[in-house]
Amino acid sequence: MKALETILPKFDSVFSIDCVIFGFDEGELKVLLIERNVEPFKDWWALPGYLVEQEESLDNAAERILYELTGLKGIYMDQFYTFGDVNRHPQGRVITVGYYAMIRLSGNKDLKPAPITNYARRAVWTPLADLPKLAFDHDKIFKRAFDKIRNKISYQPIAFELLPEKFTLTQLQHLYEVILNKKLDKRNFRKKMLNYDILKELDEKQKGVSYRAAKLYKFDKRKYARLFQKELSFGK
Amino acid sequence: MKALETILPKFDSVFSIDCVIFGFDEGELKVLLIERNVEPFKDWWALPGYLVEQEESLDNAAERILYELTGLKGIYMDQFYTFGDVNRHPQGRVITVGYYAMIRLSGNKDLKPAPITNYARRAVWTPLADLPKLAFDHDKIFKRAFDKIRNKISYQPIAFELLPEKFTLTQLQHLYEVILNKKLDKRNFRKKMLNYDILKELDEKQKGVSYRAAKLYKFDKRKYARLFQKELSFGK
Repeated sequence: MKALETILPKFDSVFSIDCVIFGFDEGELKVLLIERNVEPFKDWWALPGYLVEQEESLDNAAERILYELTGLKGIYMDQFYTFGDVNRHPQGRVITVGYYAMIRLSGNKDLKPAPITNYARRAVWTPLADLPKLAFDHDKIFKRAFDKIRNKISYQPIAFELLPEKFTLTQLQHLYEVILNKKLDKRNFRKKMLNYDILKELDEKQKGVSYRAAKLYKFDKRKYARLFQKELSFGK
Repeated sequence: MKALETILPKFDSVFSIDCVIFGFDEGELKVLLIERNVEPFKDWWALPGYLVEQEESLDNAAERILYELTGLKGIYMDQFYTFGDVNRHPQGRVITVGYYAMIRLSGNKDLKPAPITNYARRAVWTPLADLPKLAFDHDKIFKRAFDKIRNKISYQPIAFELLPEKFTLTQLQHLYEVILNKKLDKRNFRKKMLNYDILKELDEKQKGVSYRAAKLYKFDKRKYARLFQKELSFGK
């Protein structure tokens, strides 16, 4: 058996994109992974990622690569960091631009992933609790994206994109808990959240629950957004 | 005269770094520019930027490139965005990683720039008010970095890195005005700032001012930092 280096082509300097797509699903945070069907790291789990083509912009490449490897389309992604360690890829110098997105999975049937190319064997929404060791430096890329969203939930109104329109306070608390990756005290959480005056209590209760169904809430989106416009921004 | 394309080598796919270094100098915001001494864009003003070498990480490349083009060392830079439009460079596909920093110039004699290589003719702290049209897509790169710091001043305690240890309220207001790029009402600004309880009034007054010398203040760094730890972060 030949050494890996002699089988695989060597790259001089190429760019790639890796996508970290977080999905919030009924109180659980998941990330979209592919099972690789090619060397290097054949059979490993990895973030959806591939090389950027000569004639495409980074944003277009991110969209194409996510589509080819997972079948998903129309997900708005943002850059979060560019990884350029010298030895991060066994085939040579590959600098990769990390893109991320956060989406709501529950009730969203269009988000069932299936690879278009056979470069990936399958694509799976994987709960963070079950995260395997990933190919290349993808553990590091994932961690950096997770830090990003944890940070973001403290200064941007992202929660309402991840919850259904009507939600219970328990669902809201779970969202914060999984993103901050820690247990929160129920009474404190509720008190704080209600004090912000960003929630509208509805006349409806949770459905499909026969015993002690919880009240449903909606965000007052305007107030929620305003909460994040810090006074220090001086009227921005 | 030959067309530019036949004189300059063509790149297949290469990486570069561009640095946007903001300097705050006595109420004025400046950016560090170089005057290019080589084609393309010879004689144009540009951000300090150059190609990443095969055997260096992005962070190391950023440090080296800033040093070679401006002589400045030991400035902590962060990535802010990676620019990968297909036609952004006349010599081929060059994807560039933007790094930025914000530093205080006043009273800092070590920050007098002078290029080490002759790739740059000179390096100059240029007031934003006098910003010339820049080479390549550097106008766009600059703008994105400026948006970044404007955004950052609203949610991170950056002001105390940019002001001298002791400062007047007028100096503080100027800092916010130049970064936010708008005039602020003096009375409102002072009232808000004093309400935050992040300033310590000193028993000293401004020196070198004979008439109506203003009071000097210091930040209470702990309180200033705490102001930005939003309640929504739930004890982060």
